[in-house]
Amino acid sequence: MGSAIARRLVENRARVVTYLEGRSASTVERAKAAGMEPVGLDAIAASRLILSIVPPAEAVAVAKQVAAELRRRGSKTTFMDCNAISPKTMGEVAAIFGSDCGVVLDGSIIGGPPKPGQKGPKLYVSGDAANDSGVLVEHGLQVRRIDGAIGAASALKMCYAGINKGVTGLGTAMLLAAIRSGADAALKRELQESLPDLDAKFVHGIPDMYPKAYRWVAEMEEISEFLGEDDPAALIFKGMAGLYRKMARDREEGGLLADQLGKLNSGS
Amino acid sequence: MGSAIARRLVENRARVVTYLEGRSASTVERAKAAGMEPVGLDAIAASRLILSIVPPAEAVAVAKQVAAELRRRGSKTTFMDCNAISPKTMGEVAAIFGSDCGVVLDGSIIGGPPKPGQKGPKLYVSGDAANDSGVLVEHGLQVRRIDGAIGAASALKMCYAGINKGVTGLGTAMLLAAIRSGADAALKRELQESLPDLDAKFVHGIPDMYPKAYRWVAEMEEISEFLGEDDPAALIFKGMAGLYRKMARDREEGGLLADQLGKLNSGS
Repeated sequence: MGSAIARRLVENRARVVTYLEGRSASTVERAKAAGMEPVGLDAIAASRLILSIVPPAEAVAVAKQVAAELRRRGSKTTFMDCNAISPKTMGEVAAIFGSDCGVVLDGSIIGGPPKPGQKGPKLYVSGDAANDSGVLVEHGLQVRRIDGAIGAASALKMCYAGINKGVTGLGTAMLLAAIRSGADAALKRELQESLPDLDAKFVHGIPDMYPKAYRWVAEMEEISEFLGEDDPAALIFKGMAGLYRKMARDREEGGLLADQLGKLNSGS
Repeated sequence: MGSAIARRLVENRARVVTYLEGRSASTVERAKAAGMEPVGLDAIAASRLILSIVPPAEAVAVAKQVAAELRRRGSKTTFMDCNAISPKTMGEVAAIFGSDCGVVLDGSIIGGPPKPGQKGPKLYVSGDAANDSGVLVEHGLQVRRIDGAIGAASALKMCYAGINKGVTGLGTAMLLAAIRSGADAALKRELQESLPDLDAKFVHGIPDMYPKAYRWVAEMEEISEFLGEDDPAALIFKGMAGLYRKMARDREEGGLLADQLGKLNSGS
């Protein structure tokens, strides 16, 4: 997502820099292909607007790294956390920056990475009273500012992802259970007949999920934390995290479950 | 469901009897309106085919009651459990009858109660080598016999309900969370734009759920048990049971949450 967003900005005449220290060769390659310039942390801190687009489990560490550099330099900027983190974690990120590092914005991205000829995902932003995100609109991103302080955009992302990735998880779990029980052919036919929209979503969404399952584990845990212990639905997303952990492990171990699901969904 | 199925059978020239001892006045009224004849347990036991269509938590008790009557009479018949119970509970039902009471079939119903002019739900049946369910087809029901022994039709129902009622649960949980977080208007608009099929399902499915939520609690618990402790998805349905328990309680207490969801879904 980060490199695709950067590419869209670069294509629209923005200068985009990135910090690649310790990142994998494929990440470095992707960043360069997108037109980003690899720079040191000091040049990141000197940027007009910093976007954090990383796996959710790393959002806090990235915020600490950037805030430390800003304090070392004694400079201020605007930092937008765009990650799928809970409002509470977003509050932690804001607290890391405090009031001496500039402005912190709550961003969240809904939709797939931008592709040529498409409008691309929406970047929702809350806490943006001064329209610091306006520069992103000028450089080709779809931005939707929403009412509410830090936390509102993160909450929106939690709720949307809970539905979107939760539905994919339900389909994965129940199709696998049907395969184990010998009810898979009957279930597939019944879905096609009475829930064709969901069947279509599973046919596309389940294979799309496999390579992302390892990332979705932390995202499901964030949703569970977001809902809170008092909400019985928090347990739903603890289960979803476990399911996606299972699918990530299946992929590492050769993809036996993925193959079974693939055969069922292709009708072979 | 039971009375609507009975009505369809009666309309197609079947004689349908039912046992109403200890049932509520509204159940008795509904049974009579559907054309069923209230009879004693002895006449139930003398029927050619017995259908058990009750809340899932009562399926085992009904099976015990019927088996005891068959043993008292020393007669045999065919008993089809049509309830949303797990294959394991279905196995318990079959064990209650043993081999001295006749034939036990595993049935499950997918779809809403039959309405005039519509084909009505599908009754899936497994373990029906002798086509004992054929008489239901002659009297107007849609029956689909599936491969597999006792348990296969129950597994199908668990998997289908896990998807269908699970999706409604996800929508309920996340719309409520969005309302709590002030992200509800943005979420509703995003759903309409990028997941319109799911939005439409929530608009109809969530209000349809309220009066049934108390029944869905046991159904979600059955799905959790069906998946088993080794499947991380079992936790998803423990959470779903808790969510539907919350919605059932909300209804008893005046429907505050239902009102909030209704306002959001109607755009008011």
